[in-house]
Amino acid sequence: MRQNAIVGQSGGPTSAINATLVGVIAGAREARHIDRIYGARNGIEGMLEGRFLDLGNLNDEALLLLKQTPAAALGSCRKKLPPPDDPAGKAIFEKLFAFFEAKNIGYFFYIGGNDSMDTVAKLTAYAKAHRIEGISFVGIPKTIDNDLEGTSHTPGFGSAAKYIATSVQEILRDTAVYTVKAVTIVEIMGRDAGWLTAATALPRLLSGVSPDLVYLPEAVFDIERFFGDLEKAFFRHSNLVVAVSEGIRYADGRYVGEGTQSGAADAFGHRYLQGTAKALEAAVKERFGCKVRSVELNLPQRCAAHLLSATDIAESFGVGRAAAELSPVASGCMIGYERKDDPYSVSYRPVEVSEIANKIRLVPREFINEEGNHVTDACLEYLKPLIAGEYPVLYRDGLPRHFVFSLD
Amino acid sequence: MRQNAIVGQSGGPTSAINATLVGVIAGAREARHIDRIYGARNGIEGMLEGRFLDLGNLNDEALLLLKQTPAAALGSCRKKLPPPDDPAGKAIFEKLFAFFEAKNIGYFFYIGGNDSMDTVAKLTAYAKAHRIEGISFVGIPKTIDNDLEGTSHTPGFGSAAKYIATSVQEILRDTAVYTVKAVTIVEIMGRDAGWLTAATALPRLLSGVSPDLVYLPEAVFDIERFFGDLEKAFFRHSNLVVAVSEGIRYADGRYVGEGTQSGAADAFGHRYLQGTAKALEAAVKERFGCKVRSVELNLPQRCAAHLLSATDIAESFGVGRAAAELSPVASGCMIGYERKDDPYSVSYRPVEVSEIANKIRLVPREFINEEGNHVTDACLEYLKPLIAGEYPVLYRDGLPRHFVFSLD
Repeated sequence: MRQNAIVGQSGGPTSAINATLVGVIAGAREARHIDRIYGARNGIEGMLEGRFLDLGNLNDEALLLLKQTPAAALGSCRKKLPPPDDPAGKAIFEKLFAFFEAKNIGYFFYIGGNDSMDTVAKLTAYAKAHRIEGISFVGIPKTIDNDLEGTSHTPGFGSAAKYIATSVQEILRDTAVYTVKAVTIVEIMGRDAGWLTAATALPRLLSGVSPDLVYLPEAVFDIERFFGDLEKAFFRHSNLVVAVSEGIRYADGRYVGEGTQSGAADAFGHRYLQGTAKALEAAVKERFGCKVRSVELNLPQRCAAHLLSATDIAESFGVGRAAAELSPVASGCMIGYERKDDPYSVSYRPVEVSEIANKIRLVPREFINEEGNHVTDACLEYLKPLIAGEYPVLYRDGLPRHFVFSLD
Repeated sequence: MRQNAIVGQSGGPTSAINATLVGVIAGAREARHIDRIYGARNGIEGMLEGRFLDLGNLNDEALLLLKQTPAAALGSCRKKLPPPDDPAGKAIFEKLFAFFEAKNIGYFFYIGGNDSMDTVAKLTAYAKAHRIEGISFVGIPKTIDNDLEGTSHTPGFGSAAKYIATSVQEILRDTAVYTVKAVTIVEIMGRDAGWLTAATALPRLLSGVSPDLVYLPEAVFDIERFFGDLEKAFFRHSNLVVAVSEGIRYADGRYVGEGTQSGAADAFGHRYLQGTAKALEAAVKERFGCKVRSVELNLPQRCAAHLLSATDIAESFGVGRAAAELSPVASGCMIGYERKDDPYSVSYRPVEVSEIANKIRLVPREFINEEGNHVTDACLEYLKPLIAGEYPVLYRDGLPRHFVFSLD
């Protein structure tokens, strides 16, 4: 007996999250076990409020445009479910499961990051505890941060890394035109893991240029050692470019960028960081008295869908389709990538979500040089295939075309 | 009798300045009046220090890669020549003209913005005052700011506008995914003229979306009126996006972003502005208490050569070639664009540089709406053809290929 499926998107935007949505839709249409495929507005928020739409009637052009549209087209949320055994949260679970029953949902797909896998884990645990059967909860990874366990890399990371490597290569050209002594500090997203910051060094492998110094959150940051690194680099040339992760910290655990915002935290308790490069700009200006500039690549890192890794988009679509295909046997699982090299390829496999949720995959020690101020060639070899190929984005009148669901 | 030519690049980087350089090289090769074509390192700095190279032996592949490389490949400078009649500056002019004579330079091309046209004007005036003949000084425009007189638009502007419109369209998608009340303030380059900020509204013409509010330096900025504009916009939807030029000012002439940097000024007396969006972020947070985020698009606006307007690159190349062709009859001139519409086309014509230098072409009143918080359709119709077409950038191993001159 065929059942319906519902898919939601959650967490921060990426440029590839809709490629995964299109993969789920394609997979659901192919799957013999799935009847209708619904899309929830704003993740579980929409499921709780009955806001959803039927994705069954999107035509090929709509799907093609959706695939190249950045940021969750269904809308996102940052809602955290209560612990499944917390009596105070019972009403929320009951409301969700009543919705699933009313719509004959047999397959629940949640495209998101770490926090979304937490949602999948809790729904699975609640169903198990209450002996609710006949509904399969499947997580599909999505994060530009590449910091999820259970997958060799994450959908959306390759496109973000390609945009960042390209932009930094361009900034390297930009800063090289003058002869005056100057330091440009580029701040890259990544609160805990330095994968995206590591990608700034990719031009080294490909064209021989790269930032002079690269600091990841995985290595303790020391301001005096940083000044020493700059002094050494000034012997080589006068225009230095430094890439820093927003999440770099001092030995005592303090963030370098701490204190520049009001200490606000999101619903998951993550503190907002802003101004790591700004803080360093002031410090370098004081110490060296030269021209210093800070550049935050900011939001475009996660939504610059005009520059997509063809590899990333193919895999992001593939993992969505695989999730639909594997859904009868993958409840409580996230579908992860399994990477092979020589030649590079990726396959999709289910991993228990309880083993993944709330864990962080950091850049390993062997990917960072001994001085802790750059990445190794092994790191670049890991990154290189993930940015390969340019996805052929469709334009109209000079701008990339996006697909937007009409308001419900 | 054929003479040699020298070309220099000056001022801030653009993504199209090397397309113009390639145009000059192509034009010089074709021109019967030009023998060798030299490239000065770092503009007139290199001419004063004898740092230059022969551009005659670049092969077709090198020229193709040079064309898609952002930021002055020959290096740039911000050197300002002294007034030609100032005895204190005589030595500099004598040194330059001695260099021209030694190298048998008959044609001097300077690719740059307003300040570079000032250099062309001074060299022309000095030669005239000292009855030096046989050398033609030709300016070629270049600025992302589109604020030069004597040309319907500027080489480099179209690509910057395309990048900015595309990035803002992506940010509009990014900010739309959540349901919480929020304001995103995007700061765009443009100290005096709001052309680039106006380009943020281009998605309105093409896909119906655009920032809710757009503030150019040409309209006086009033913080209370701004708060009122936001209040009205919140009636329509909860996620607002505001585009502001870095150069917006209050009625008393103070920059909104003033005071956030140390009041430093460059060699031309321009004051550095930074933090217009940051300043507004704090003000909006205090007034509305909602989530507020500021985004500076920063350096990529002038060097994101992975996203080039095919129209801009064709014209930027064309104006360089036209300069070489017209050089015998265009001394003391800048080669400007003359635009025709229905259908859109551009031709190249010399304009007296003395009429252009140190003037600024602002966005006209009819391009700004009555409330001073958005641009009109007439403005978008002016901008639209300038971002048309995607230049086919060549990649290798996932990154755009750049051409770099080896160190001299």
